[in-house]
Amino acid sequence: MSAAPLDALGVSQRLADYGAWLDAMDYEAWLGLFTADCDYQITTRENEQAGLPLALMWCDGQAMLADRLASLQHVNEYNLHYPRHVMGMARRLPEQAAAPNAFEAPYALYQTTLEGESRLFSVGRYAMQWRAVNGDWKLHTMRVIVDTAQVPSLLACPI
Amino acid sequence: MSAAPLDALGVSQRLADYGAWLDAMDYEAWLGLFTADCDYQITTRENEQAGLPLALMWCDGQAMLADRLASLQHVNEYNLHYPRHVMGMARRLPEQAAAPNAFEAPYALYQTTLEGESRLFSVGRYAMQWRAVNGDWKLHTMRVIVDTAQVPSLLACPI
Amino acid sequence: MSAAPLDALGVSQRLADYGAWLDAMDYEAWLGLFTADCDYQITTRENEQAGLPLALMWCDGQAMLADRLASLQHVNEYNLHYPRHVMGMARRLPEQAAAPNAFEAPYALYQTTLEGESRLFSVGRYAMQWRAVNGDWKLHTMRVIVDTAQVPSLLACPI
Repeated sequence: MSAAPLDALGVSQRLADYGAWLDAMDYEAWLGLFTADCDYQITTRENEQAGLPLALMWCDGQAMLADRLASLQHVNEYNLHYPRHVMGMARRLPEQAAAPNAFEAPYALYQTTLEGESRLFSVGRYAMQWRAVNGDWKLHTMRVIVDTAQVPSLLACPI
Repeated sequence: MSAAPLDALGVSQRLADYGAWLDAMDYEAWLGLFTADCDYQITTRENEQAGLPLALMWCDGQAMLADRLASLQHVNEYNLHYPRHVMGMARRLPEQAAAPNAFEAPYALYQTTLEGESRLFSVGRYAMQWRAVNGDWKLHTMRVIVDTAQVPSLLACPI
Repeated sequence: MSAAPLDALGVSQRLADYGAWLDAMDYEAWLGLFTADCDYQITTRENEQAGLPLALMWCDGQAMLADRLASLQHVNEYNLHYPRHVMGMARRLPEQAAAPNAFEAPYALYQTTLEGESRLFSVGRYAMQWRAVNGDWKLHTMRVIVDTAQVPSLLACPI
């Protein structure tokens, strides 16, 4: 079964799921957006520009990402904050032979504490490669490139 | 006259109107987005999760919403702030027999004071049900679910 | 060669390029979005409402915009901050005989300092007129209407 071609609107709609599931803490649904052998990384704009392989978070495969989320739910039992993603529309990145179906999108991530204060947590962009799996498109590589070099305390959570 | 099927893009476009009209304080245009017997509520994420019927604002029908806006314009004659909505793309909520055409979308709402300070006012999500009326889609229920439990002073305004 | 009709989705996709190129400081690509005789202005909501012709920045043509960016890159050699644009979906403005293909879109612009602090810099809206040039759509007029009356220090940069 082959997947219909992926365009910027289709990516934007999948990112709307991505954000809504993270914000609802529905990690099982969120994991379903990735390929089994995905590569998920959070890195900084400075490291990205300098070509450094340093990552603030790196999960090599969907299973490792699932482990990470399981431990997060255990540790963070009392839900110290609520996340909220607001993203701009995705755009296709220039085609390279090695990277078809590459897109990027900007995001702003807010956190609200249980005391009721909402604040900006992180801004940056998603750089993605999508791959067709059984007729649907899945995230094969996801690099979250945060503009903020400061590592906030709760970077335990995916962005 | 029957309306063309509603999809996430169509909802996103209508929400762009929703935000632009609130930000321009064009309340008459904004009211035109709702059905006559609409249900408009602002509630908190905590109340929503706990299943509590408490609302920060509740307007039962377009006429009540219009009354609210009329009194707001009278009280708030000197325009104490400017609002600005930035929303992410809408997504369809899982179909339930009782709720077709249900969508959600995340938002960030900023306020700028007349002194020129822009700040984050509220983040959260819209949970909507749309209904076809005379060949166009109208908001039949709108639940604004704010992440912030603190009730800011100016929640007199719709979000 | 005639351009395909422009709709809100097409504008949103071009604005995604607009924001991504500014954020990546790829000014050459960004300039390519404008017509040769474009009019680029940054003004405030107050001036806009009062019908005042005052602008915080005004570039009369693509060449002047290019000059501005060249001097910016020279002065601002050490890259004092990173910008990040997150925009809502565009919407078509009511047609007037004099202004077809007029659209608007809300934006939030964040800045991250080299010390790693991300903060809200400006919110407002883009009011645009697009014109077909050689089969593609270009920005002929761009009015950036900032909600914030305070002029931040780094308004040297386009928004």
